[in-house]
Amino acid sequence: MSVQTSKAVFLNAYPNGLPELSSFEVKDIDLPEPGEGEMLCRTVWMSVDPYMRGRMNPHVKSYIPPFSLEKPLEGGAVSEVVASNNPAFSAGDYVVDFLGGWKEYYISKGERTQKVDPDLAPLSAYLGVLGMPGMTAWAGVTQILKPKEGETVFVSGAAGAVGSLVCQLSKSKGARVVASAGSAAKCEWLEKEAGVDVALNYKSYKNAGELTKALAEAAPKGVNCYFENVGGMHLEAALNCIALGGRIALCGMIAQYNNQKPEPGPSNLVNLIGRGVMARGFIVSEFMDKAMEFFAEVAPLLAQGKIKFQESVYEGLDAAPEAFLGLFKGENFGKAVIRVGPDRR
Amino acid sequence: MSVQTSKAVFLNAYPNGLPELSSFEVKDIDLPEPGEGEMLCRTVWMSVDPYMRGRMNPHVKSYIPPFSLEKPLEGGAVSEVVASNNPAFSAGDYVVDFLGGWKEYYISKGERTQKVDPDLAPLSAYLGVLGMPGMTAWAGVTQILKPKEGETVFVSGAAGAVGSLVCQLSKSKGARVVASAGSAAKCEWLEKEAGVDVALNYKSYKNAGELTKALAEAAPKGVNCYFENVGGMHLEAALNCIALGGRIALCGMIAQYNNQKPEPGPSNLVNLIGRGVMARGFIVSEFMDKAMEFFAEVAPLLAQGKIKFQESVYEGLDAAPEAFLGLFKGENFGKAVIRVGPDRR
Repeated sequence: MSVQTSKAVFLNAYPNGLPELSSFEVKDIDLPEPGEGEMLCRTVWMSVDPYMRGRMNPHVKSYIPPFSLEKPLEGGAVSEVVASNNPAFSAGDYVVDFLGGWKEYYISKGERTQKVDPDLAPLSAYLGVLGMPGMTAWAGVTQILKPKEGETVFVSGAAGAVGSLVCQLSKSKGARVVASAGSAAKCEWLEKEAGVDVALNYKSYKNAGELTKALAEAAPKGVNCYFENVGGMHLEAALNCIALGGRIALCGMIAQYNNQKPEPGPSNLVNLIGRGVMARGFIVSEFMDKAMEFFAEVAPLLAQGKIKFQESVYEGLDAAPEAFLGLFKGENFGKAVIRVGPDRR
Repeated sequence: MSVQTSKAVFLNAYPNGLPELSSFEVKDIDLPEPGEGEMLCRTVWMSVDPYMRGRMNPHVKSYIPPFSLEKPLEGGAVSEVVASNNPAFSAGDYVVDFLGGWKEYYISKGERTQKVDPDLAPLSAYLGVLGMPGMTAWAGVTQILKPKEGETVFVSGAAGAVGSLVCQLSKSKGARVVASAGSAAKCEWLEKEAGVDVALNYKSYKNAGELTKALAEAAPKGVNCYFENVGGMHLEAALNCIALGGRIALCGMIAQYNNQKPEPGPSNLVNLIGRGVMARGFIVSEFMDKAMEFFAEVAPLLAQGKIKFQESVYEGLDAAPEAFLGLFKGENFGKAVIRVGPDRR
């Protein structure tokens, strides 16, 4: 099979505020023949994730560098190896990597690439519950929060790809779980399917004070662990209710990613001091040496049906920008994935 | 010796904002005879510390409960045992406890009371470098920040009782130390006596942006460890300059303790995430099981003259409210202590 060109998505300019569809452009790019040690891959599923917004700021200082405007965007993908000069991979293998997103075909050196077992779980799960978002949730729960039986865990963005697994892993440790999400349908799923004790629809609360009151009622013994995906009034309410010796895993602050001017932080950070609280910001790559441990814990739970997940599926590479923008509008339920090409198995 | 009454300082009402001298009242209280297991103590030195402001808020949820309006205030003191029915202490012993502050005489059960060696260091040092502030600094440096050789440590409130020891302990670990303090004289002492690499007079900077610029110049490789005593623009500047994998010890936010309305937090908390930063609030009582370890590290450094400290001495119990208010006006240089009664040795 010979592929000369591929469709790929570029960023036109670094966005100021919420990106628009016009911030993105789908172009045809030329692909070279795969060289020594390289392989040609075809993207089957790609992922859009909130962290990508951070890579669209040109001056951000982070463990992940900003995107280039000169090259296609990149991100997590499940792909089929079409042709391989890399001894570790063969044509017909399915792989997950951090390169194949935002394109239909690409040349890979096989770096940060893992073969996946297509019979263990649906391929798209390797971008969600068994992929980077799942690993993020697992690392936050097991490496940072470490909830004990009977403690209360509060999770914002709880219906998302990361949050929904945080809820379920925390339940599996014997914690009481209070979740926040942005619609009645999401809250119903969290309580009925994901097993959380109380789900709060944050859109019912006008400000941090109202959310604090609801959270205090749902967590009468205080919040021992807070998993932060959202920022803003969620962080302020969590700090109002945090228990002595509390732990906070700071994973995302999606409410702020598109702010054009800086939004002040919560006024109650001082609670961290008197209550002896540890807050730890993290991105998942720090914990990659524990990927096998993650997989060993989560894959069996998934196989046994003890972990539920939801997906919002978009069709075709052209829909990728829309899927990405949906992350910031609360439009996606569970993991947002894009079917870029057919699964030919 | 028979003592029937003692002068003691009461809080008239929980203050709203900065307390005033009229918030305090010195009264005579009756003292009972010491009962079984009790002793009569005479306060020689007492301490005023910023954390006491937190205890003047009636509804604060913290490891330390609020002060009562019905009883004298309390706090750290070095006292002479006048008469003892407690087998662990004898008349003539010098002790440090958390009860004898804000009064001339008092009855103690000997709880949380340690004998001190009056020949090892000046008695007042047991309220500063060898006391609770010293232990606070030591815990923040050795248990939370753990600076490595060649890393950069930033310390706010650096000329204070806690900050000045944080600077010197960090230097002893081989770190580069950038300090912030509120006068040219304090900065000069920090650079010439305490050995810090760069001392910034924060009053030269109008806002967080200006302080960030100065800090970035003083810490060209970024801030690996931040010891927070102040809050406000200091925290914002530190978060702007924090390095990947940075650690923050949140010890105090003195700039905010007297705010009458909530002051927003910094707008750049999201830096904690991308840079993988751990922020840990603490109060020293959490680490009390390590007091011997603290003493074993700091006492020899002090005896060898490798640790310098400063004191602002106030004379007489009546001066205690003024000394306390001085904490929030930047008027004290080093540890503020009050000589309540004579050292009769």
